[in-house]
Amino acid sequence: MTASPDTNDPMSVAFAEARAAAARGEAPIGAAVVRDGAVIARAGNRARERADPTAHAEIVAIREAAARLQSERLVGCDLYVTLEPCAMCAGAIAHARIRRLYYAAPDAKGGAVDHGPRLFGQPTCHHAPEVYGGIRESEAAAILRAFFAAKR
Amino acid sequence: MTASPDTNDPMSVAFAEARAAAARGEAPIGAAVVRDGAVIARAGNRARERADPTAHAEIVAIREAAARLQSERLVGCDLYVTLEPCAMCAGAIAHARIRRLYYAAPDAKGGAVDHGPRLFGQPTCHHAPEVYGGIRESEAAAILRAFFAAKR
Repeated sequence: MTASPDTNDPMSVAFAEARAAAARGEAPIGAAVVRDGAVIARAGNRARERADPTAHAEIVAIREAAARLQSERLVGCDLYVTLEPCAMCAGAIAHARIRRLYYAAPDAKGGAVDHGPRLFGQPTCHHAPEVYGGIRESEAAAILRAFFAAKR
Repeated sequence: MTASPDTNDPMSVAFAEARAAAARGEAPIGAAVVRDGAVIARAGNRARERADPTAHAEIVAIREAAARLQSERLVGCDLYVTLEPCAMCAGAIAHARIRRLYYAAPDAKGGAVDHGPRLFGQPTCHHAPEVYGGIRESEAAAILRAFFAAKR
Protein backbone atom coordinates (compact mmCIF):
# COMPACT_ATOMS: atom_id res chain seq x y z
CA MET A 1 0.00 0.00 0.00
CA THR A 2 1.43 3.35 -0.98
CA ALA A 3 0.87 6.41 1.13
CA SER A 4 -1.88 8.62 -0.22
CA PRO A 5 -1.04 12.29 -0.60
CA ASP A 6 -1.89 14.28 2.49
CA THR A 7 -5.01 16.15 1.43
CA ASN A 8 -5.37 17.80 4.80
CA ASP A 9 -2.21 19.85 4.71
CA PRO A 10 -3.16 23.49 4.06
CA MET A 11 -1.34 23.86 0.76
CA SER A 12 -3.11 20.75 -0.55
CA VAL A 13 -6.41 22.31 0.50
CA ALA A 14 -5.44 25.46 -1.44
CA PHE A 15 -4.58 23.33 -4.49
CA ALA A 16 -7.92 21.53 -4.28
CA GLU A 17 -9.64 24.92 -4.21
CA ALA A 18 -7.59 26.05 -7.23
CA ARG A 19 -8.67 22.98 -9.22
CA ALA A 20 -12.29 23.46 -8.18
CA ALA A 21 -12.10 27.09 -9.34
CA ALA A 22 -10.77 25.98 -12.73
CA ALA A 23 -13.68 23.54 -13.04
CA ARG A 24 -16.03 26.50 -12.51
CA GLY A 25 -14.29 28.49 -15.24
CA GLU A 26 -12.56 30.79 -12.76
CA ALA A 27 -8.85 31.60 -12.72
CA PRO A 28 -7.44 28.53 -10.91
CA ILE A 29 -6.23 30.00 -7.65
CA GLY A 30 -7.02 28.63 -4.21
CA ALA A 31 -6.38 29.67 -0.63
CA ALA A 32 -6.69 28.36 2.91
CA VAL A 33 -6.50 30.08 6.30
CA VAL A 34 -5.03 28.08 9.16
CA ARG A 35 -5.21 28.64 12.87
CA ASP A 36 -3.75 26.34 15.51
CA GLY A 37 -3.02 23.76 12.85
CA ALA A 38 -6.59 23.61 11.52
CA VAL A 39 -7.97 25.01 8.27
CA ILE A 40 -10.65 27.50 9.35
CA ALA A 41 -11.47 28.88 5.88
CA ARG A 42 -10.85 27.74 2.31
CA ALA A 43 -11.80 29.31 -0.99
CA GLY A 44 -11.12 29.48 -4.68
CA ASN A 45 -11.48 32.42 -6.98
CA ARG A 46 -15.17 33.38 -7.40
CA ALA A 47 -14.83 36.68 -9.28
CA ARG A 48 -16.76 35.63 -12.39
CA GLU A 49 -19.47 33.66 -10.65
CA ARG A 50 -20.17 36.43 -8.17
CA ALA A 51 -19.54 39.31 -10.58
CA ASP A 52 -17.20 40.64 -7.91
CA PRO A 53 -13.76 41.96 -8.86
CA THR A 54 -12.64 41.56 -5.25
CA ALA A 55 -13.54 37.86 -5.00
CA HIS A 56 -9.99 36.54 -5.31
CA ALA A 57 -9.34 33.33 -3.38
CA GLU A 58 -7.37 35.15 -0.66
CA ILE A 59 -10.08 37.77 -0.08
CA VAL A 60 -12.88 35.21 0.04
CA ALA A 61 -10.89 33.04 2.48
CA ILE A 62 -9.91 36.00 4.68
CA ARG A 63 -13.50 37.23 4.84
CA GLU A 64 -14.72 33.75 5.74
CA ALA A 65 -12.09 33.34 8.46
CA ALA A 66 -12.85 36.78 9.91
CA ALA A 67 -16.58 36.02 9.95
CA ARG A 68 -15.89 32.73 11.68
CA LEU A 69 -13.66 34.35 14.32
CA GLN A 70 -15.90 37.44 14.48
CA SER A 71 -12.81 39.58 14.27
CA GLU A 72 -11.28 41.91 11.70
CA ARG A 73 -7.86 40.70 12.77
CA LEU A 74 -6.78 37.16 12.11
CA VAL A 75 -4.18 37.11 14.84
CA GLY A 76 -2.06 33.96 14.78
CA CYS A 77 -3.52 32.89 11.44
CA ASP A 78 -1.51 31.79 8.40
CA LEU A 79 -2.58 32.02 4.76
CA TYR A 80 -1.72 29.45 2.09
CA VAL A 81 -2.34 30.40 -1.53
CA THR A 82 -1.38 28.86 -4.85
CA LEU A 83 -0.22 32.11 -6.48
CA GLU A 84 1.73 35.10 -5.22
CA PRO A 85 -0.89 37.63 -4.05
CA CYS A 86 -1.69 40.79 -6.02
CA ALA A 87 -1.68 44.27 -4.45
CA MET A 88 -5.34 44.04 -3.42
CA CYS A 89 -4.83 40.73 -1.67
CA ALA A 90 -1.49 41.70 -0.13
CA GLY A 91 -3.20 44.80 1.28
CA ALA A 92 -5.97 42.63 2.74
CA ILE A 93 -3.36 40.28 4.24
CA ALA A 94 -1.77 43.28 6.00
CA HIS A 95 -5.14 44.59 7.25
CA ALA A 96 -6.04 41.11 8.55
CA ARG A 97 -2.69 40.81 10.36
CA ILE A 98 -1.94 37.43 8.80
CA ARG A 99 1.07 35.93 10.60
CA ARG A 100 2.65 33.88 7.83
CA LEU A 101 2.02 33.80 4.11
CA TYR A 102 2.86 30.68 2.13
CA TYR A 103 2.46 30.86 -1.61
CA ALA A 104 3.17 28.44 -4.45
CA ALA A 105 3.83 30.04 -7.85
CA PRO A 106 5.48 33.46 -8.07
CA ASP A 107 3.67 35.98 -10.29
CA ALA A 108 6.07 38.32 -12.04
CA LYS A 109 3.22 40.12 -13.83
CA GLY A 110 0.63 40.61 -11.10
CA GLY A 111 2.36 39.69 -7.85
CA ALA A 112 2.85 42.43 -5.27
CA VAL A 113 4.78 40.56 -2.60
CA ASP A 114 8.08 39.58 -4.23
CA HIS A 115 7.44 41.49 -7.48
CA GLY A 116 6.11 44.89 -8.53
CA PRO A 117 5.48 47.15 -5.53
CA ARG A 118 6.71 44.52 -2.99
CA LEU A 119 4.12 45.86 -0.60
CA PHE A 120 5.34 44.25 2.61
CA GLY A 121 8.70 45.98 2.20
CA GLN A 122 7.19 49.45 1.78
CA PRO A 123 7.93 51.86 4.65
CA THR A 124 4.19 52.63 4.94
CA CYS A 125 3.20 48.96 5.31
CA HIS A 126 1.73 48.67 8.81
CA HIS A 127 1.92 44.88 9.06
CA ALA A 128 4.07 42.44 7.13
CA PRO A 129 3.64 38.68 7.49
CA GLU A 130 6.56 36.28 7.28
CA VAL A 131 6.62 35.16 3.63
CA TYR A 132 7.49 31.72 2.27
CA GLY A 133 7.21 31.53 -1.53
CA GLY A 134 7.79 28.84 -4.13
CA ILE A 135 6.13 25.90 -2.32
CA ARG A 136 5.03 23.36 -4.97
CA GLU A 137 5.67 26.12 -7.47
CA SER A 138 5.83 23.94 -10.59
CA GLU A 139 2.55 22.19 -9.74
CA ALA A 140 0.76 25.53 -9.32
CA ALA A 141 2.31 26.94 -12.47
CA ALA A 142 1.18 23.86 -14.43
CA ILE A 143 -2.44 24.33 -13.29
CA LEU A 144 -2.38 27.98 -14.36
CA ARG A 145 -0.72 27.18 -17.71
CA ALA A 146 -3.23 24.44 -18.51
CA PHE A 147 -6.15 26.71 -17.68
CA PHE A 148 -5.01 29.65 -19.77
CA ALA A 149 -3.88 27.40 -22.67
CA ALA A 150 -7.37 25.86 -22.81
CA LYS A 151 -8.96 29.33 -22.91
CA ARG A 152 -7.04 30.40 -26.00
CA MET B 1 -33.57 81.86 0.12
CA THR B 2 -30.03 80.56 0.13
CA ALA B 3 -28.98 77.69 -2.05
CA SER B 4 -28.81 74.42 -0.14
CA PRO B 5 -25.65 72.41 -0.57
CA ASP B 6 -25.92 69.95 -3.41
CA THR B 7 -26.30 66.65 -1.60
CA ASN B 8 -26.64 64.72 -4.83
CA ASP B 9 -23.19 65.38 -6.16
CA PRO B 10 -21.12 62.22 -5.76
CA MET B 11 -18.51 63.65 -3.40
CA SER B 12 -21.29 64.90 -1.11
CA VAL B 13 -22.74 61.40 -1.13
CA ALA B 14 -19.32 60.04 -0.13
CA PHE B 15 -19.10 62.61 2.68
CA ALA B 16 -22.58 61.64 3.93
CA GLU B 17 -21.42 58.01 4.00
CA ALA B 18 -18.27 59.00 5.89
CA ARG B 19 -20.33 60.80 8.55
CA ALA B 20 -22.72 57.84 8.80
CA ALA B 21 -19.73 55.52 9.28
CA ALA B 22 -18.43 57.71 12.11
CA ALA B 23 -21.85 57.55 13.76
CA ARG B 24 -21.58 53.75 13.69
CA GLY B 25 -18.12 53.89 15.30
CA GLU B 26 -16.33 53.02 12.08
CA ALA B 27 -13.40 54.93 10.62
CA PRO B 28 -15.17 57.84 8.87
CA ILE B 29 -14.56 57.12 5.22
CA GLY B 30 -17.20 57.07 2.53
CA ALA B 31 -17.36 56.25 -1.15
CA ALA B 32 -19.70 56.46 -4.13
CA VAL B 33 -19.61 54.86 -7.57
CA VAL B 34 -21.02 56.88 -10.45
CA ARG B 35 -22.08 55.82 -13.91
CA ASP B 36 -23.61 58.08 -16.54
CA GLY B 37 -23.93 60.83 -13.94
CA ALA B 38 -25.89 58.73 -11.44
CA VAL B 39 -24.69 57.26 -8.14
CA ILE B 40 -25.13 53.49 -8.56
CA ALA B 41 -23.51 52.44 -5.26
CA ARG B 42 -22.60 54.20 -2.02
CA ALA B 43 -20.98 52.91 1.14
CA GLY B 44 -19.13 53.77 4.28
CA ASN B 45 -16.55 51.73 6.12
CA ARG B 46 -18.16 48.59 7.66
CA ALA B 47 -15.05 46.72 8.81
CA ARG B 48 -15.92 46.63 12.51
CA GLU B 49 -19.63 45.98 12.15
CA ARG B 50 -19.09 43.14 9.70
CA ALA B 51 -15.89 41.84 11.32
CA ASP B 52 -14.41 42.05 7.82
CA PRO B 53 -10.94 43.55 7.31
CA THR B 54 -11.76 44.08 3.62
CA ALA B 55 -14.93 46.11 4.24
CA HIS B 56 -13.42 49.50 3.46
CA ALA B 57 -15.83 52.00 1.90
CA GLU B 58 -14.30 51.61 -1.56
CA ILE B 59 -14.49 47.80 -1.51
CA VAL B 60 -18.08 47.76 -0.27
CA ALA B 61 -19.11 50.31 -2.92
CA ILE B 62 -17.27 48.51 -5.73
CA ARG B 63 -18.83 45.18 -4.79
CA GLU B 64 -22.26 46.75 -4.68
CA ALA B 65 -21.80 48.43 -8.06
CA ALA B 66 -20.49 45.21 -9.63
CA ALA B 67 -23.43 43.24 -8.24
CA ARG B 68 -25.81 45.83 -9.61
CA LEU B 69 -24.22 45.80 -13.06
CA GLN B 70 -23.65 42.02 -12.87
CA SER B 71 -20.12 42.59 -14.08
CA GLU B 72 -16.65 42.32 -12.57
CA ARG B 73 -15.63 45.32 -14.60
CA LEU B 74 -17.09 48.71 -13.86
CA VAL B 75 -16.39 50.10 -17.30
CA GLY B 76 -17.13 53.81 -17.54
CA CYS B 77 -17.62 54.09 -13.78
CA ASP B 78 -15.98 56.68 -11.54
CA LEU B 79 -15.22 56.33 -7.83
CA TYR B 80 -15.46 59.15 -5.29
CA VAL B 81 -13.92 58.57 -1.86
CA THR B 82 -13.18 60.81 1.09
CA LEU B 83 -9.65 59.47 1.72
CA GLU B 84 -6.82 58.44 -0.57
CA PRO B 85 -7.24 54.67 -1.09
CA CYS B 86 -4.92 52.13 0.55
CA ALA B 87 -3.12 49.38 -1.39
CA MET B 88 -6.00 46.94 -1.03
CA CYS B 89 -8.54 49.43 -2.35
CA ALA B 90 -6.26 50.75 -5.10
CA GLY B 91 -5.78 47.16 -6.23
CA ALA B 92 -9.56 46.65 -6.28
CA ILE B 93 -9.97 49.89 -8.26
CA ALA B 94 -7.55 48.54 -10.88
CA HIS B 95 -9.30 45.14 -11.03
CA ALA B 96 -12.68 46.86 -11.39
CA ARG B 97 -11.35 49.06 -14.22
CA ILE B 98 -12.60 52.24 -12.57
CA ARG B 99 -12.29 55.09 -15.09
CA ARG B 100 -11.66 58.06 -12.80
CA LEU B 101 -10.80 58.22 -9.11
CA TYR B 102 -11.67 61.35 -7.14
CA TYR B 103 -10.47 61.46 -3.54
CA ALA B 104 -10.65 64.11 -0.83
CA ALA B 105 -7.92 63.89 1.84
CA PRO B 106 -4.47 62.56 0.98
CA ASP B 107 -3.17 59.83 3.31
CA ALA B 108 0.59 60.01 3.74
CA LYS B 109 0.59 57.04 6.13
CA GLY B 110 -1.73 54.56 4.46
CA GLY B 111 -2.39 55.91 0.98
CA ALA B 112 -1.13 53.88 -1.98
CA VAL B 113 -2.10 56.17 -4.86
CA ASP B 114 -0.02 59.32 -4.38
CA HIS B 115 2.00 57.99 -1.43
CA GLY B 116 3.80 54.78 -0.49
CA PRO B 117 3.85 52.28 -3.35
CA ARG B 118 1.98 54.63 -5.75
CA LEU B 119 0.36 51.59 -7.25
CA PHE B 120 -1.08 53.11 -10.40
CA GLY B 121 2.40 54.18 -11.46
CA GLN B 122 3.91 50.71 -11.03
CA PRO B 123 5.00 49.06 -14.29
CA THR B 124 2.99 45.93 -13.35
CA CYS B 125 -0.26 47.86 -12.81
CA HIS B 126 -2.65 46.57 -15.49
CA HIS B 127 -5.17 49.41 -15.24
CA ALA B 128 -4.73 52.92 -13.87
CA PRO B 129 -7.66 55.30 -13.49
CA GLU B 130 -7.32 59.02 -14.00
CA VAL B 131 -6.74 60.40 -10.49
CA TYR B 132 -8.02 63.69 -9.04
CA GLY B 133 -6.98 64.18 -5.42
CA GLY B 134 -7.50 66.88 -2.82
CA ILE B 135 -11.19 67.65 -3.49
CA ARG B 136 -12.69 69.14 -0.29
CA GLU B 137 -9.52 67.93 1.41
CA SER B 138 -9.80 70.06 4.56
CA GLU B 139 -13.38 68.99 5.18
CA ALA B 140 -12.45 65.30 4.93
CA ALA B 141 -9.39 65.76 7.10
CA ALA B 142 -11.50 67.52 9.76
CA ILE B 143 -13.93 64.59 9.91
CA LEU B 144 -11.06 62.15 10.35
CA ARG B 145 -9.34 64.32 12.98
CA ALA B 146 -12.51 64.74 15.01
CA PHE B 147 -13.19 61.03 14.93
CA PHE B 148 -9.73 59.96 16.04
CA ALA B 149 -9.49 62.76 18.64
CA ALA B 150 -12.73 61.54 20.22
CA LYS B 151 -11.38 57.98 20.38
CA ARG B 152 -8.32 58.93 22.41
